[in-house]
Amino acid sequence: MGTHPDRSTALLTDRYELTMLHATLADGRASRRSVFEMFTRRLSGGRRYGVVAGTGRILEAIADFRFGDDEVRFLRDSGVIDATTAAWLADFRFGGDIWGYPEGELYFPGSPVLVVEGTFAECVVLETMVLSILNHDSAIATAGARMIASAGDRPCIEMGSRRTHEDAAVAAARAAYIAGFAATSNLEAGRTYGIPTTGTAAHAFTLVHDTEREAFEAQIAALGSDTTLLVDTYDIAEGVRNAIAAGGTGLGAVRLDSGDLAQVAAEVRAQLDGLGATSTRITVTSDLDEHAIAALAVAPIDGYGVGTSLVTGSGVPTSGFVYKLVAREDDGGTMVPVAKKSKDKISVGGRKYAVRRRENDVATAEVIGIGEPPATDHDDRELLVPLVRDGVLQDLGTLGDARARRHAALHELPATGLRLSKGDPAIPTQYEER
Amino acid sequence: MGTHPDRSTALLTDRYELTMLHATLADGRASRRSVFEMFTRRLSGGRRYGVVAGTGRILEAIADFRFGDDEVRFLRDSGVIDATTAAWLADFRFGGDIWGYPEGELYFPGSPVLVVEGTFAECVVLETMVLSILNHDSAIATAGARMIASAGDRPCIEMGSRRTHEDAAVAAARAAYIAGFAATSNLEAGRTYGIPTTGTAAHAFTLVHDTEREAFEAQIAALGSDTTLLVDTYDIAEGVRNAIAAGGTGLGAVRLDSGDLAQVAAEVRAQLDGLGATSTRITVTSDLDEHAIAALAVAPIDGYGVGTSLVTGSGVPTSGFVYKLVAREDDGGTMVPVAKKSKDKISVGGRKYAVRRRENDVATAEVIGIGEPPATDHDDRELLVPLVRDGVLQDLGTLGDARARRHAALHELPATGLRLSKGDPAIPTQYEER
Repeated sequence: MGTHPDRSTALLTDRYELTMLHATLADGRASRRSVFEMFTRRLSGGRRYGVVAGTGRILEAIADFRFGDDEVRFLRDSGVIDATTAAWLADFRFGGDIWGYPEGELYFPGSPVLVVEGTFAECVVLETMVLSILNHDSAIATAGARMIASAGDRPCIEMGSRRTHEDAAVAAARAAYIAGFAATSNLEAGRTYGIPTTGTAAHAFTLVHDTEREAFEAQIAALGSDTTLLVDTYDIAEGVRNAIAAGGTGLGAVRLDSGDLAQVAAEVRAQLDGLGATSTRITVTSDLDEHAIAALAVAPIDGYGVGTSLVTGSGVPTSGFVYKLVAREDDGGTMVPVAKKSKDKISVGGRKYAVRRRENDVATAEVIGIGEPPATDHDDRELLVPLVRDGVLQDLGTLGDARARRHAALHELPATGLRLSKGDPAIPTQYEER
Repeated sequence: MGTHPDRSTALLTDRYELTMLHATLADGRASRRSVFEMFTRRLSGGRRYGVVAGTGRILEAIADFRFGDDEVRFLRDSGVIDATTAAWLADFRFGGDIWGYPEGELYFPGSPVLVVEGTFAECVVLETMVLSILNHDSAIATAGARMIASAGDRPCIEMGSRRTHEDAAVAAARAAYIAGFAATSNLEAGRTYGIPTTGTAAHAFTLVHDTEREAFEAQIAALGSDTTLLVDTYDIAEGVRNAIAAGGTGLGAVRLDSGDLAQVAAEVRAQLDGLGATSTRITVTSDLDEHAIAALAVAPIDGYGVGTSLVTGSGVPTSGFVYKLVAREDDGGTMVPVAKKSKDKISVGGRKYAVRRRENDVATAEVIGIGEPPATDHDDRELLVPLVRDGVLQDLGTLGDARARRHAALHELPATGLRLSKGDPAIPTQYEER
């Protein structure tokens, strides 16, 4: 199920995918068996690891990637394709194989996160769409995982919908959930993906009432005393008094959205305790990122709401994945490795296989076999799983499985791999060619 | 017309909008006449101006903002709303008034880019969605306008779809077109918004062929000799020779996607001229942003393709717009200004009006009247236009109109306002309260 079930995804693509299709259908190269791989050349922003997210959305999008009458007519009318290509597209259905890192798994430079095999034609037309999804969703999941690591046992809530494109917001909530966020503010993410949703009130709610006390009483009447009251519309100390007066010492939580959060949280904790509201929680929001969360570790805070920096990737808004042809058939039917020969954009030709090498349950390297699987005389964990076989989507498990996978994979890293500071990847990438 | 016409947009929102609705329907405040305004507190990243984009998409999204059976059932089943709220939502249709800056117009700190007036209930439920759209689209348009200013007379093409969420990509192409981009690679943007699309071939196209020469001949056979050949898969000088051998001296263009673009472009220009291909253009792509484009001004380049940095806002991926209640009815029916009193998040209460003040056709200030229009004894240009009247969408003109508006508004700025460096807004914001 996606957010817009009736729409073909086939035009969510760059025009050149279809002009390449057109030209290779004409000269016969369209049918050459090909392997495309998706990988990053580096981890942008000095990140120590990346978190894979979006694979499940890619499979949904491939299922909806059909060229109906409307799509074909548009392409013909705008001169993008010829009649032969139009006929090919009308029958198009991806019939190849896809392997990939499952969602929640970590990736490093060169990791073959998606391996797509089929004819050149059926693989090339997917390029733009699969890149869009993986580049976006993995950027959010990676930023989110850093925040979760900073937050320790304190729950984090995704609330960035208003800071990103309205549909990207739904995907961002999904990626954040994979990263370990406890809930989202986004209702469509709740409907589409079953992610828990939360939300209580904004400053406007207080301001539309004649007094803060009246607003708090109205919220408690509607949502019960376990709700979270936003106490910083006017004066925070007065807001806390009004909150406990309205909700009693059993009030669920208060939320702070401005000021020096560490200092204010300490003052509010003391005030709540003094009023007898010792179990009333304090949640904070206001331009938080992984660094701000880390700096608040010693403050008496019970949960974080994160918006802008999460949905914009906290400085790395896109993951840098590319989708490259690494092998294709020759006239004799033999698969040959291929690669662009640019100095500044290195690609390694040949089909890849990947394992995470471990010693004493600690990851030591991302080992990538070129042309065949790496030697397996170590405590290696296989990373590529079948996602599509002969065009048939495989079962990927639940988002809960992806959350658990992310948790386990992060805790397998050497301790230095969890650092927030910029630096080298947590483990090196090693290529093996037997 | 949108990219997914059959989908309600009503759940593209934060849960708290609906809990606020629920609580105010219960205590009667939902019906208070209210004014919400969308503005930014600052221009992030030291930008000199912002470019408004997304207004047209907001109006489409409001038209689709209906709570059908599926939406209401989800909200009831998840405990977000009660029966009274469910009944209200089933009948919901925005019936208020909206004024706003038209697309392509510039904005500055405090500019009331959208002014929404109606009952508290009907205004508050729109908050998340309108913020999502304007925050995203304006970030792209602002980055794009800086690139266009750097490119001078050379055309720029938007080709960032693969670097952002697949639906955000369509909106990004639209925003870039408003900013002055000549075309997009994104086919759905072509279909949905009528934006010109372009695209020829990637490195994979060359690699799937046995030789570069064979690939170029196939492309020319399919697309004609006015096409653009990508010449950097192997050796660039050899690629240029192959390109002219295949396409003749009337070849449309060659594309460079790697290396030191200034140096390589100079070498390729000399080689093309030496081969007699004096009218063959050179287009460049490869991690360009406004600064890289400015640095290439003296290189013999005929056009730019921009991807990552455009669709991610070139360092400013979201615009920082907030949506704040600034006035609401009291029990006597009088509209009273309201504002949050936080030290670090300043809001100015009261309904705003805005003009761009000019002297000798040069903009000198963004003048914002509080509660009533600014005094008009100057060469002022009105900035707010009616977008919705009593729930009826107004005609906003075409994307071409928005492009022309952006062009005119930028050229009205003082010369220092077009600087790429970080600094103060191009013109100051002045509040007037008579």
